[in-house]
Amino acid sequence: MKSIAVILSGCGYLDGSEIRESVAALWALSQHDVKVKIFAPDEPQTIVMNHYSGKATGDTRNMLAEAARIARGKIEPLSMLSDHDYDALIMPGGFGVAKNLCTFAADGASGTILYKELLYDITAMHSDGRPIGAICIAPALIGLALKGKKLELTLGADGNEAEEMRKLGHTHFETKPNEIHIDKTNKLVTTPAYMYDDAPINVVFEGIKKLVGEVVRMIQR
Amino acid sequence: MKSIAVILSGCGYLDGSEIRESVAALWALSQHDVKVKIFAPDEPQTIVMNHYSGKATGDTRNMLAEAARIARGKIEPLSMLSDHDYDALIMPGGFGVAKNLCTFAADGASGTILYKELLYDITAMHSDGRPIGAICIAPALIGLALKGKKLELTLGADGNEAEEMRKLGHTHFETKPNEIHIDKTNKLVTTPAYMYDDAPINVVFEGIKKLVGEVVRMIQR
Repeated sequence: MKSIAVILSGCGYLDGSEIRESVAALWALSQHDVKVKIFAPDEPQTIVMNHYSGKATGDTRNMLAEAARIARGKIEPLSMLSDHDYDALIMPGGFGVAKNLCTFAADGASGTILYKELLYDITAMHSDGRPIGAICIAPALIGLALKGKKLELTLGADGNEAEEMRKLGHTHFETKPNEIHIDKTNKLVTTPAYMYDDAPINVVFEGIKKLVGEVVRMIQR
Repeated sequence: MKSIAVILSGCGYLDGSEIRESVAALWALSQHDVKVKIFAPDEPQTIVMNHYSGKATGDTRNMLAEAARIARGKIEPLSMLSDHDYDALIMPGGFGVAKNLCTFAADGASGTILYKELLYDITAMHSDGRPIGAICIAPALIGLALKGKKLELTLGADGNEAEEMRKLGHTHFETKPNEIHIDKTNKLVTTPAYMYDDAPINVVFEGIKKLVGEVVRMIQR
């Protein structure tokens, strides 16, 4: 059976993984005959946000322990990712991707990937022709990891984030939250999800279901 | 347009609302032409659990701020619930229901509802014939609030929780996670969801989609 790794970065869209996107990805994956393993760094988040007030709390939280809330405890430290081969990688979005896993939120196109095993795995998967599905802001992390690889990707509407991707040599395609963009050459599938802040949840699920379906098709060919 | 209130109690199945059940309920509701408002108590959780280690952390967290992670900030304090009339109530599960909203986890059939506005609203909705949808362990809270009302409900397999419900005068029906039980007399719809710990996520979604569909049908009749 083919296996897919899902990378999380916390639990909550302002400081970790976007919860609904993560659940949508797991829900869509459960409709296919694939094994799924969830990973997150066993490291502190860069920030903790009160999601009611929208303000930073000054606390610290561990990404692995927080992401375990979404994973119902069935999760491993990101450092274990390289110990096994996965046929594909899926990354939900949320500010955690752009703040905890890389520095895209602060540094844009000059940002760096903060975990060497993540950079290594993305690079290895790409060069092996194994597909990557990236949701919401996660395509920006893939764009940083694979700078100069001339990726095709979507971050929803064409704004600042898209401009940063062009600086890295990639091409941005506008999409709606129920749509995906498929880069056949690089086996990268992307969907904007909550890049559209007010997207209805069923529309976000529709886009993510398409993304997962396409990634699974790519590994079952 | 009909309006439905969703009650949360945190963010994580060991100390708050079960995340996947909450997201499933919101996803299912988004497929109907209804208004949805999310509430949680602006009060500390009774416990905070590390969901990776499964151990208590000793920290405190606020239910409203944590549930706001699932609600993407669009949430109100539970104290506001009584200020408006809702056509129906939906309660996802998770230990938060049995620990933060009532004392069922510790006290079983002799437990109490911890928020008077919640007890008031459940009682008022029941006596007005407005439907309630309760997921996972949430039927136990409804059972406590409406003791002696001879409810029909499901908590999945017939175990200790079902026995506590019988002590309160209710009847328990065994169901699978893709099934619902409908109590037409009391307009109570229940589904076990993660009462089956290892239920596949798409099966849990199937049960919750049926529950939401039935609650919406009841208010649109």
